[in-house]
Amino acid sequence: MNIPYPIKIRAVWWDESSRKTCWINTLKLPHSEEVECSSDPVRVAKAIIDLEIRGAPAIGVAAALAVASYAWTLTGKPREEFYSKTLEAVSVLWATRPTAHNLFHALTRVREKLLAGMSAGATPLEAAEDVTREALKIMEEDIYSNYLIGEHGSQLVPDNASILTHCNAGALATSALGTAEAVMRVAWYKGKRIRVYATETRPVLQGARLTVWELVKEGIPVTLITDNTAGFLMRKGMVDLVIVGADRITREGYVVNKIGTYMIALAARRNNIPFYVAAPTSTIDLNSRIEDVVIEERNPAEVKYVMGRLITLEEASALNYAFDITDPDLVTAIITEKGVVKPPFPENLKKIVGSSQPH
Amino acid sequence: MNIPYPIKIRAVWWDESSRKTCWINTLKLPHSEEVECSSDPVRVAKAIIDLEIRGAPAIGVAAALAVASYAWTLTGKPREEFYSKTLEAVSVLWATRPTAHNLFHALTRVREKLLAGMSAGATPLEAAEDVTREALKIMEEDIYSNYLIGEHGSQLVPDNASILTHCNAGALATSALGTAEAVMRVAWYKGKRIRVYATETRPVLQGARLTVWELVKEGIPVTLITDNTAGFLMRKGMVDLVIVGADRITREGYVVNKIGTYMIALAARRNNIPFYVAAPTSTIDLNSRIEDVVIEERNPAEVKYVMGRLITLEEASALNYAFDITDPDLVTAIITEKGVVKPPFPENLKKIVGSSQPH
Repeated sequence: MNIPYPIKIRAVWWDESSRKTCWINTLKLPHSEEVECSSDPVRVAKAIIDLEIRGAPAIGVAAALAVASYAWTLTGKPREEFYSKTLEAVSVLWATRPTAHNLFHALTRVREKLLAGMSAGATPLEAAEDVTREALKIMEEDIYSNYLIGEHGSQLVPDNASILTHCNAGALATSALGTAEAVMRVAWYKGKRIRVYATETRPVLQGARLTVWELVKEGIPVTLITDNTAGFLMRKGMVDLVIVGADRITREGYVVNKIGTYMIALAARRNNIPFYVAAPTSTIDLNSRIEDVVIEERNPAEVKYVMGRLITLEEASALNYAFDITDPDLVTAIITEKGVVKPPFPENLKKIVGSSQPH
Repeated sequence: MNIPYPIKIRAVWWDESSRKTCWINTLKLPHSEEVECSSDPVRVAKAIIDLEIRGAPAIGVAAALAVASYAWTLTGKPREEFYSKTLEAVSVLWATRPTAHNLFHALTRVREKLLAGMSAGATPLEAAEDVTREALKIMEEDIYSNYLIGEHGSQLVPDNASILTHCNAGALATSALGTAEAVMRVAWYKGKRIRVYATETRPVLQGARLTVWELVKEGIPVTLITDNTAGFLMRKGMVDLVIVGADRITREGYVVNKIGTYMIALAARRNNIPFYVAAPTSTIDLNSRIEDVVIEERNPAEVKYVMGRLITLEEASALNYAFDITDPDLVTAIITEKGVVKPPFPENLKKIVGSSQPH
């Protein structure tokens, strides 16, 4: 699988020699680039909970790799212990974050390999190999998905376009080129002139810290704005299209993404600006209704503090929903690795996901 | 002029003994409550530019008081010098911030007193007295306006209402009870149970720093949210009404207010939630069209730093519009001291402002 574009940033990867799962600690960016590696599922789970690793595809890949890393530490154990402990690691990682569909998609795949190995009488070594192969396949598929999302999506980007994006749906949220940012990167690599407005994305500032860092590194012109500014830029005619990622897309086409996406979509609609969502089909959840999706509530301290500084009264109460819901009628199209999906979403999402999704 | 409610917080006031203009430095809130007093118009202008004093009505009052304070330091000077220097102070204060209409409204009133004194041969002492009387009148009118806005607006607040507000349109933005917050305060004093969601209001966090501080002080239940969260709360049915202030309202009913207001108004419309704007008639500008209003662009450092902490790359470019524009069709009603103005705004604003406005 060859991708004709440079991959300059990796969020998560497999270290072949140590069989550890490695990642950039995105909490430390952009001020320092710290790499962590571990084969302890509890350590990786903590990294996912604390947002060292974040972004729907990246947490799916990291969780799958973490199960594989851990399995290798157990190959000397009796069969029963190997399977029960490795399956326990799946559960630990499963419980990290409730909203992103990719996490459950990836963990379901490695769990199925484990269960198949158990039934077939595979040795711990064989099972560790199987799980690793599956985890690496999930990662490779994600890299290739990024590329194909970029190829499909870049056709929607006119030359000289001003693109608004929210949060980080970039290399740091996936295995390679990103989802929304894959579209920007491929458009850029193809020679299109683009400029990006990146929202800072409170509370955790993934736009200011990660998207700006990635695009500066890539050489793509980027301007940071507060989240509050997105609507006004659109009203002033300064934005040609919006592209965001997604943490989950339901069968009806509801898009669950970083809190704030909904208001951006409303402003795009008001100003007749295309609102695109870029995500691999592993983000599409054909089994849940939007009412069933758990919107993660995180620690109010993320709202009350910015980079360690208290911005309000210590005793203030605060509410921290991490995601919101954008209604299908506000979405112009969903860019997947299998092509661009347009409304009506209930039919067209089902068609594009096809039978590839585990149940 | 008696107001039947406690005034617990003053943003700006006249110190009778020293004839200085005094204010709380809102930049230091909520961590420390520092009072500054000055009779130097350059110092007050700097306080307005740097946002020690902010909020449309408060900067109008502060500017008028600053001219009066300065006039008193010149009463020993020859008549010509007194007038030219005092008028120069008007110009210095005029140039501080371009968007809020109240600034120009208040300075026009004190300038007219000065020009009348000049024509009538008033001595410096007489003119300083005249200007002080006018500045104090502007302040007293603002206090009374706050109260009346509260009385009119509180009738729009149902019992048990959840109110969303943006930025700070409170005591710290006016001379006493606030505009949007006067509505909340009076509803609360009248015994209505309310709860307030305060957006943090990036870049300068007036919601997190000032609105939360004021409402905690008042005992009104308040919950801090990121700006990104406003739309989702409305979509979830957690907000009964939105009330914000305004920096300028044009004759057609366009509302210029803190950046982010537009997206909140769009979310309110989408979810059929009333969107109220509370402002004294001194904020209504019958003379300008929306195209003529200058939207202030402030230092990008306000976006790149939060309370002194760099949140992105040092070399990143950033854009910092301080205000945005909400279209008249998104506004349910405008609450003024003279009553509640409903659409159609072009006729009804003209009617309510009447002939009270200087030209």
